[in-house]
Amino acid sequence: MSLKPRIEAAIASAIREGQAGAAPPKLAAALDYAVNPGGARIRPTICLSVALACGDRTPALADAAATAIELIHCASLVHDDMPCFDNADTRRGKPTVHRAYGEPLALLTGDSLIIMAFEVLARAAATDPARAVHLIRLLGSSTGMPGGICAGQGWESEAQIDLSAYHRAKTGALFVAATRMGAAAAGQDSEPWTELGARIGEAFQVADDLRDALYDEQTLGKPAHQDEINGRPNAVSQLGVRGAIRRLEDILSGAIASIPSCPGEAMLAEMVRKTAERLTPVLPAHQTV
Amino acid sequence: MSLKPRIEAAIASAIREGQAGAAPPKLAAALDYAVNPGGARIRPTICLSVALACGDRTPALADAAATAIELIHCASLVHDDMPCFDNADTRRGKPTVHRAYGEPLALLTGDSLIIMAFEVLARAAATDPARAVHLIRLLGSSTGMPGGICAGQGWESEAQIDLSAYHRAKTGALFVAATRMGAAAAGQDSEPWTELGARIGEAFQVADDLRDALYDEQTLGKPAHQDEINGRPNAVSQLGVRGAIRRLEDILSGAIASIPSCPGEAMLAEMVRKTAERLTPVLPAHQTV
Repeated sequence: MSLKPRIEAAIASAIREGQAGAAPPKLAAALDYAVNPGGARIRPTICLSVALACGDRTPALADAAATAIELIHCASLVHDDMPCFDNADTRRGKPTVHRAYGEPLALLTGDSLIIMAFEVLARAAATDPARAVHLIRLLGSSTGMPGGICAGQGWESEAQIDLSAYHRAKTGALFVAATRMGAAAAGQDSEPWTELGARIGEAFQVADDLRDALYDEQTLGKPAHQDEINGRPNAVSQLGVRGAIRRLEDILSGAIASIPSCPGEAMLAEMVRKTAERLTPVLPAHQTV
Repeated sequence: MSLKPRIEAAIASAIREGQAGAAPPKLAAALDYAVNPGGARIRPTICLSVALACGDRTPALADAAATAIELIHCASLVHDDMPCFDNADTRRGKPTVHRAYGEPLALLTGDSLIIMAFEVLARAAATDPARAVHLIRLLGSSTGMPGGICAGQGWESEAQIDLSAYHRAKTGALFVAATRMGAAAAGQDSEPWTELGARIGEAFQVADDLRDALYDEQTLGKPAHQDEINGRPNAVSQLGVRGAIRRLEDILSGAIASIPSCPGEAMLAEMVRKTAERLTPVLPAHQTV
């Protein structure tokens, strides 16, 4: 069963709320531009998959959780692409938000999407405000300081990087949010879902390093070989291409083994396997490794 | 009774939470730099004053509301000062955050403070999650799109500005949040408090226009005469200096008249009068108007 229509409908509804009434038209358009067309929507897919595996008894909260995570992810892409960070011209095969709308509106687009993520959760609180508050706390801790994606990005300004804290915050935090918020939205204890999210996050980091090393800008839809150009530590420089692919497979096996016992356990294992297939780069025929 | 110690303690506690554990040190320091030493803390003072006037039965929620509003205000100053907006070198008499820490950390400081504002409210939800969710919704609508301060700033990128929507969102929204969230934190219906916040916001806008026109950079602690330099519509160019001062006095009388009936009505009127005194510029002796 594809979760895509459900995810896209929930995201579209959130964006429409942000564009309502007397909104400034360009910023309203930039909100839509920043989230559509989306990438693989991998984080909301994980979130909803976990919610479904746990029974999905409050689907409105699960939709809100999935949407909130994707809005934060899109906000981080908009801000990270800006000239003071990656200075990227393209993203998902089209001009980045600051290239299309200018820097002031790109900055405001990121800010507005962050705020919208919290609003979406608060609006879905009607039936169970305590559960919504718990989701808001999970989103906050995975997003801000001291351990969320802002913290992860912040490590890049340090002379001495705590590499474990860096990766956990920069890439891991939102995947942990995806599994934990999926479980919490369905009324389950979220803590046992931390490891699954953390392992998917690690896998994603290794896969991202592989794609950055192996693909060109056209295939990636964004500038390639950035790790090498910027001298950033990455799995390919440490393990080689085949070593990194083996590492990716190990992490994903560990992820499947970590899935807590729940009605949808088998379905979730299948979701992780599919994610793995999508993540693992197809080696180009001419690639020597 | 001064509310300052209570406000400063609540803000300091929020910042400490954001700096805990394995936080990246520079970003952790920048969070503190962005909010301390503060300005007049006028928005949290209004928020707590309204909460007290309404009985202040859940002080932890009132503190959280006041803190959240000030964190958002500080975040907006950090982002607005950046080169793509005002490109300001000084704020509150010291280098702006991007001057002191660089643009990447300034961008992340703003993002982190926005997220922290929502976390502070969620953390204070224990005794009454439904009330906390209501406060989160009020904060979101006064902050993001389509009608919050992000929207207000967004109007500055439009060729045709809806001036009423612009001022309502850019300056008014956070003052409306201050009065409404103060009442909501105390368990009162927040809607009747909208007009008081809106009128204080209008007064603040006129006072800001006056200070920008009359004071120099040293007195202001930030660049002066920006409205004139950037050709922005403002109360001084429309009404002259004395006309703008009369307008300010009229708005503040209206604000006092709008205070809803409550146990602390007289105390609140006094707070508005004090705010007015603080806002109204002292004309320099040599000023010809």
